[in-house]
Amino acid sequence: MDALFDRHQPTLAAALKAAQERGYWSAYPEIPSGKIYGETAKDDGLASYKIRLGKPFDLPGHPETTNVGAEVSPFGPTLAITYPAADADTLIAASQAAAPAWADAAAKTRVGICLEVLARLNRISFEIANAVMHTTGQAFAMAFQAGGPHAQDRGLEAVAYAFAEMTRTPAQAIWTKPQGKAEPIVLEKHWRILPRGISLVIGCQTFPTWNSYPGLFASLATGNTVIVKPHPGAILPLAITVSVIRQVLAEEGFDANIALLAADAPGAEITRDLVENNAVQLIDYTGSNSFGDWVRKHAGDAQVYTEEAGVNSIVVAGTDDFAGMCANIAFSLSLYSGQMCTAPQNIFVPRSGIKTDEGHKSFDDVAKAIAAAIDDLLGDPARAAGVCGAIANPATLSRIETARSLGTLIRDSAPVTTGDARTATPLVLAVDADKTDAHEEERFGPITFIVAVADVGEGIEKATSLARRKGAITAALYDTDSSRIDAAVDAFARAGVNLSINLTGGIFVNQSAAFSDFHVTGANPAGNASLTDAAFVANRFRTVMWRRPKAA
Amino acid sequence: MDALFDRHQPTLAAALKAAQERGYWSAYPEIPSGKIYGETAKDDGLASYKIRLGKPFDLPGHPETTNVGAEVSPFGPTLAITYPAADADTLIAASQAAAPAWADAAAKTRVGICLEVLARLNRISFEIANAVMHTTGQAFAMAFQAGGPHAQDRGLEAVAYAFAEMTRTPAQAIWTKPQGKAEPIVLEKHWRILPRGISLVIGCQTFPTWNSYPGLFASLATGNTVIVKPHPGAILPLAITVSVIRQVLAEEGFDANIALLAADAPGAEITRDLVENNAVQLIDYTGSNSFGDWVRKHAGDAQVYTEEAGVNSIVVAGTDDFAGMCANIAFSLSLYSGQMCTAPQNIFVPRSGIKTDEGHKSFDDVAKAIAAAIDDLLGDPARAAGVCGAIANPATLSRIETARSLGTLIRDSAPVTTGDARTATPLVLAVDADKTDAHEEERFGPITFIVAVADVGEGIEKATSLARRKGAITAALYDTDSSRIDAAVDAFARAGVNLSINLTGGIFVNQSAAFSDFHVTGANPAGNASLTDAAFVANRFRTVMWRRPKAA
Repeated sequence: MDALFDRHQPTLAAALKAAQERGYWSAYPEIPSGKIYGETAKDDGLASYKIRLGKPFDLPGHPETTNVGAEVSPFGPTLAITYPAADADTLIAASQAAAPAWADAAAKTRVGICLEVLARLNRISFEIANAVMHTTGQAFAMAFQAGGPHAQDRGLEAVAYAFAEMTRTPAQAIWTKPQGKAEPIVLEKHWRILPRGISLVIGCQTFPTWNSYPGLFASLATGNTVIVKPHPGAILPLAITVSVIRQVLAEEGFDANIALLAADAPGAEITRDLVENNAVQLIDYTGSNSFGDWVRKHAGDAQVYTEEAGVNSIVVAGTDDFAGMCANIAFSLSLYSGQMCTAPQNIFVPRSGIKTDEGHKSFDDVAKAIAAAIDDLLGDPARAAGVCGAIANPATLSRIETARSLGTLIRDSAPVTTGDARTATPLVLAVDADKTDAHEEERFGPITFIVAVADVGEGIEKATSLARRKGAITAALYDTDSSRIDAAVDAFARAGVNLSINLTGGIFVNQSAAFSDFHVTGANPAGNASLTDAAFVANRFRTVMWRRPKAA
Repeated sequence: MDALFDRHQPTLAAALKAAQERGYWSAYPEIPSGKIYGETAKDDGLASYKIRLGKPFDLPGHPETTNVGAEVSPFGPTLAITYPAADADTLIAASQAAAPAWADAAAKTRVGICLEVLARLNRISFEIANAVMHTTGQAFAMAFQAGGPHAQDRGLEAVAYAFAEMTRTPAQAIWTKPQGKAEPIVLEKHWRILPRGISLVIGCQTFPTWNSYPGLFASLATGNTVIVKPHPGAILPLAITVSVIRQVLAEEGFDANIALLAADAPGAEITRDLVENNAVQLIDYTGSNSFGDWVRKHAGDAQVYTEEAGVNSIVVAGTDDFAGMCANIAFSLSLYSGQMCTAPQNIFVPRSGIKTDEGHKSFDDVAKAIAAAIDDLLGDPARAAGVCGAIANPATLSRIETARSLGTLIRDSAPVTTGDARTATPLVLAVDADKTDAHEEERFGPITFIVAVADVGEGIEKATSLARRKGAITAALYDTDSSRIDAAVDAFARAGVNLSINLTGGIFVNQSAAFSDFHVTGANPAGNASLTDAAFVANRFRTVMWRRPKAA
């Protein structure tokens, strides 16, 4: 019965230990190497991806009253895949019909199935990488890592937390209450896990798997049925995911409709119908603050977990590695052309400049050095393509156009490659905080403001105030003054922002590692939940008891 | 610094162990004995209570723009105590001013203070008992137990869960990521707890301390400031509680306004103003479903934990101890005159009767035997007074009046005592489920329906359907058929109701013991939260990180 659980138990145990200790750990290798994934894995993954193009996506037994599909790769080609689709009521009914057996299944059975799904997803990481690449615009290496192993790690983390919570209360206990000189009262008590209902997972275009897996797997493991609503522009990675889940469910004798795909067409989204349906009791949402606000207001009694957006800041106060700092910042701004929710937008620099290992640097020196570091990084076209990838949404290009006039141009944005791909390198503008608040709006994409402020204190004040008002997922500080660092640590913590200090070399503020970094704190408008803590899973199920006098 | 934590650490450790094992355990003795609480404790408690009557309640430093107070004991006397009061904005401002230092305090410091508060509350359990008795109408023994030690146990349970959650993530860790043949990336990471904001605790009249302590202490322990909004008819028990909290806070160098009392006058409640204020990020509510619905809809982005109301059922299918069953049910119906949220309202009995150790009993036999058991229990006036106590709210007497015509009168309600006390024994009516649905409305107070159904299966179906639609906190079953019991266990579990089977003797369906019984499941309309599980505490705080390269 629990063969899958037993098979994957070592992985689960290691995940639980890692989440407890929060050092580095990963279950799924992030290196797209043939030595790890098999010599033909890369070619096989590409072939598996290609064979899906231009035809209906097969999801046996899935509700289908129509079909949809309009994905176009940011790198050019039209995917021309259609997906089975149905209205919200049809999906809800199918989900409810599948629910009782899943709710009744043992926690170990469900967790075993989730772990098997993750293992199979890991094996097809190259296929997923191609699917992610051609829906999000991520370059291949990033699509592999973030869309494959890193997303799987986040899913495993959620399963591990769910397992820990579900097994925290024993299945039974004997309750013996003394009665003075009389016989004690002895009851046997039994507890079971009761899921909440239907779990709706609303994916985003830029990280369809990474941002969806935590909620998806946390809900599945705790016995809820799941409806996965992908962004209409990034259906394929989640369709493959749902397909694998359905396959394992069916093999294990469950109704495959425990996991449904709510594919829809751009302009005819069914998200609102799903959110407003009372049967939906859990909602995981990744996307804009404006629609997030709508979701939170219209979710009724559903528990809502959101990752919305924010304006991430770097405060540059001083450094003993000026070149390393500039190179590190350049990479953070360029990676996936600033389309990560963790990418910095604003770099606060004192008007009077900063102290560095290369002597005093004026505000202009700093701005120009960051721009030059970007030029260095992206000088080689092949490397530039590998770092920047493509632009997921055409609106981002318009946003760059509009942004050009908002400050002094330090570095212009330009296409990375010729050809069909929609690409753009970072636009870098200098502004003065006393003269504009253009930088206080979230401007998604490769748009950076170097913001002149009176001093470091004002930079921190502005960055944290912005985080409180508009949200922020990450922040970075470069400083060498330990008392100023201590003050910044307190200030960013109070604003609910995770802070990275003095990063140079191969680690970046954008990066958030499962089992160690909690992604989003839930403590500012950038989101109301964190990936993954106990709060993210504990409310996805209830505990119900029965008790009776213990037979003598 | 953490002297209080160290002092109470053994209690905390025992609480954590008990909550994990869920056998019987209690930190605070429930027996109102001089041997435990001191030979003069009872007299001292009464004197302390009496000295508060007829004068302003002293809360040094508490915001006070006016004063309120209109409590009248259900046993007769007017309390004539006035409390400092202020509008919502004034209270919010004072709470926010007190917040930073409390948020910055170490988890151990806050937990130590909570444990000291609970220890001091325990020492004044006799005073609390009088305060609870004369605001709720509970008889003294129950007011002592439920208002004192049992409430303190529930508070301790919440503190223990909060401590477990806050210490689940280490304060720091080293993250070492291998880089193949290159040097690994080594980061030091630091985490801290960030509270949500202001926590509003909305108390009820019948269990002002028991129902408020879990949310109150969970929020305090996790670093939130707390505004306690008592029912205007039951301010004193929470005023004393807030007073003790403020005293310990001040002794430990904190702003006493970390805990505020939002006393208000009947008809001029400030609850809505508090609920709708964006600074309020956590709300614990105990009360009616109708106002609960309003709270859930108007809480904005605050996390809301509710215990509302439901219609609790007993299904009588058969018994091998007919007399014991009737006596047990009689006590459950009579205790505090049915004013417990856990008291049964409906008793489903097959029209054709049931098998018992005394032979076959017809529907009428069962109804009459339960009525007779109530008469037996309440035959002695002193014992009747001790069991029934008084009626908290005059509306309950009107409800009994109205209910009389809803079915066949099996046992009439009558005053328990002569004199000023507002009292009523259980009203027992027989109805047929095919002919009325009068029993499907919650009728709060000593109103019981013996409901005729086709068979046991229909009884379970009706009881669980009612639980799904209207909510239920408890259910009981009397049966001797093990396969039927198994089916009932599944049915009630799916309806999210805790089920007690074949209770006789000194344990009752109404009773819910801290550290073992989760009170309310959160899985039906009787409430959206459970006292106390991880879900009840984990979302009261956030975890924020800073990280930097580890110095070589």
